[in-house]
Amino acid sequence: MTVQEQARKARSAALTLGSATRATKDAALLAMADALAKSETAVLEANARDVARAEANGTSAALIDRLRLTPDRIAGMVEGLRDLAALPDPVGDVVRGWTNANGVQVRQVRVPFGVVGIIYEARPNVTADAGGICLKSGNAALLRGSSSAAESNAAVVEALQTGLVDAGFPAEAIQLVPGPREVTSQLMAARGLVDVLIPRGGAGLIDNVVRNSQVPVIETGVGNCHLFVDAGADEQMALNILINAKTQRPSVCNAVETLLVHADLADSFVPKALDALAAHGVAVHGDPQVAAYGEVIPAEDQDFAEEYLSLDLAVAIVASLDAALQHIRRYSTGHTETIITQSQSSAARFTAEVDAAAVLVNASSRFVDGGEFGFGAEIGISTQKLHARGPMGLPEMTSSKYVVTGSGQVRQ
Amino acid sequence: MTVQEQARKARSAALTLGSATRATKDAALLAMADALAKSETAVLEANARDVARAEANGTSAALIDRLRLTPDRIAGMVEGLRDLAALPDPVGDVVRGWTNANGVQVRQVRVPFGVVGIIYEARPNVTADAGGICLKSGNAALLRGSSSAAESNAAVVEALQTGLVDAGFPAEAIQLVPGPREVTSQLMAARGLVDVLIPRGGAGLIDNVVRNSQVPVIETGVGNCHLFVDAGADEQMALNILINAKTQRPSVCNAVETLLVHADLADSFVPKALDALAAHGVAVHGDPQVAAYGEVIPAEDQDFAEEYLSLDLAVAIVASLDAALQHIRRYSTGHTETIITQSQSSAARFTAEVDAAAVLVNASSRFVDGGEFGFGAEIGISTQKLHARGPMGLPEMTSSKYVVTGSGQVRQ
Repeated sequence: MTVQEQARKARSAALTLGSATRATKDAALLAMADALAKSETAVLEANARDVARAEANGTSAALIDRLRLTPDRIAGMVEGLRDLAALPDPVGDVVRGWTNANGVQVRQVRVPFGVVGIIYEARPNVTADAGGICLKSGNAALLRGSSSAAESNAAVVEALQTGLVDAGFPAEAIQLVPGPREVTSQLMAARGLVDVLIPRGGAGLIDNVVRNSQVPVIETGVGNCHLFVDAGADEQMALNILINAKTQRPSVCNAVETLLVHADLADSFVPKALDALAAHGVAVHGDPQVAAYGEVIPAEDQDFAEEYLSLDLAVAIVASLDAALQHIRRYSTGHTETIITQSQSSAARFTAEVDAAAVLVNASSRFVDGGEFGFGAEIGISTQKLHARGPMGLPEMTSSKYVVTGSGQVRQ
Repeated sequence: MTVQEQARKARSAALTLGSATRATKDAALLAMADALAKSETAVLEANARDVARAEANGTSAALIDRLRLTPDRIAGMVEGLRDLAALPDPVGDVVRGWTNANGVQVRQVRVPFGVVGIIYEARPNVTADAGGICLKSGNAALLRGSSSAAESNAAVVEALQTGLVDAGFPAEAIQLVPGPREVTSQLMAARGLVDVLIPRGGAGLIDNVVRNSQVPVIETGVGNCHLFVDAGADEQMALNILINAKTQRPSVCNAVETLLVHADLADSFVPKALDALAAHGVAVHGDPQVAAYGEVIPAEDQDFAEEYLSLDLAVAIVASLDAALQHIRRYSTGHTETIITQSQSSAARFTAEVDAAAVLVNASSRFVDGGEFGFGAEIGISTQKLHARGPMGLPEMTSSKYVVTGSGQVRQ
């Protein structure tokens, strides 16, 4: 089946999904969860074949870890689907409404996008998460996973489709889009058939989709996040937040990648920071001023641009708040930026002038997350300015429609 | 100056605009209005040169009418700028906010996009409207008008910039982007420098921008709008709305282009509709079933796909509500679709199943408009599903940012 044919089937399924009630969608989610739980053996066997192939190809241990499914990870996927059933349905929410002077009633109502394409990398658990989130928000899903997880993804989707059909929905509501690389290009060209594309993965994948897609895209996730410690900051607070934001889970997009220290504070703070970072196994890539305080890897310009996603941190000393703002303007990916300060005016300038999905004052960047925000489910963190910006929950997976009701009114 | 250089200057101006208060922006709008009023003679002279060139090139009378400025039209532009000063500022609005269990406060706040590019056709009044709307919403504007209005647009922008500078803003907050066709491509390639592109004009322009832009686009305006008269509809109401929606202003995107009549009603309604349409000078392009009721121009398939923007109307008879929904699914541009019905279940199905920015029950499609919705200002009507859908006022010209404030909290 071509991508176009798959998308047409998805559009037809979307019509059913769009007017489905919450009760029927929740029943489907629970049926999908049950079917996935029952398919544990089949999914693990398929995954073992993917892992064996990846190992034979010399794939890195880190990638194989992302690819590998375990009974625990499958239980997590099953649980995720059940959790979705417990969340409110965004579809049908009245965003706002009013009655015109002539009696015409206007309501802006949340509706599904229609067909959502998700392009993602090796993690097979995304298959269940994304399929479930799309279903709950009334969208048909076209899931374009990576070829390295092909068998795992196929086994998961087969289980999800069993659940869908058990609950009376068309299997085409959640489809895997297999095939060679050109298939991704075909998906990006399917304007009019696919309503939105969401790439989830590394910077290369996201950049490719954003630049080449004719289908509207929601850009997610690359986070070169900065932590600026202002003059007069509470140093202990700064250390706690720095270590948490860098080391609590270094592989995620809201982890801190660059530390900027106000020069006034450097003599006192930098030595403590270097000690604490070393104690937590963090490799510091420092500018020459930082090198004066201890042994560091000399930072190249590229270090300040990089999203390490590892226990590495670029560190620079800046002369002022203005210099920090300028540095962030130059290198930020617009994800999450943090200031540690006791100054009301520094906090106000930082939150106003930094152009990012989230700006934090005296809190860890790790809080910028759909789960921490209480969204219950998260499809990703948008770093673009159109539509949704920041963590995307179920309401962000919808569009809206104006429903206008009259009794014969015409325009004067 | 290259587009890139202009965009860089715009980004720098956007930084000032982004943290400007409403009071200073309103003062600038009033200064822009005053400067434009004072420049009336210069603008009219520039416009006369554009019109003379267009006439010499054999441009159609309709296009010259759109190009031509008069003292009245300039007064309208001045008034538009003053009206903007009276509207609330969307920037800084708190969309939602909450406090997490650990005391971390999260607020989602409206912020400007940054730099907005508007690509538009001959009407020079768009120059003042778009410039004013961008300024009020805190965005720097790159205005790419058509070459046919080059001198008029330059004179208008010069006046606006005088007002900006008088009020203490950088002139680069509103810039005209002149030059040959390639300049439009450069604007569409300026990802990272331009935050959003909004094309305003005909289907060809919009399609070009939507397909080729690497900058995120808000698609506006093409409206192949349908009016479906259901079985059992109030025929007099249907006639009133039909004539209003088709003839009150046929050149706009929310005018009706196709009439669909339920077969059960055809014998009674179609003859009355043909009479009323003829009396209002509307040329009917009818399918063979319609032709049985009177003399019509035979409708080709293309007639049902076309946005006439003139006193032309495609008419078809459909066997059922399902057939009407199917016809609309095939030909709709997702702008505004209307049902005239007395049936609660028909209205419910139509509003749920039709995939459009606005769906109307028993009211004229001409109500789908920023002015009629009470928005005070309108940059266009979005027909896409991401970000804004339907009439776009000032809040739709903003993005948002999460501001997260703590007192040292870290993630467990």
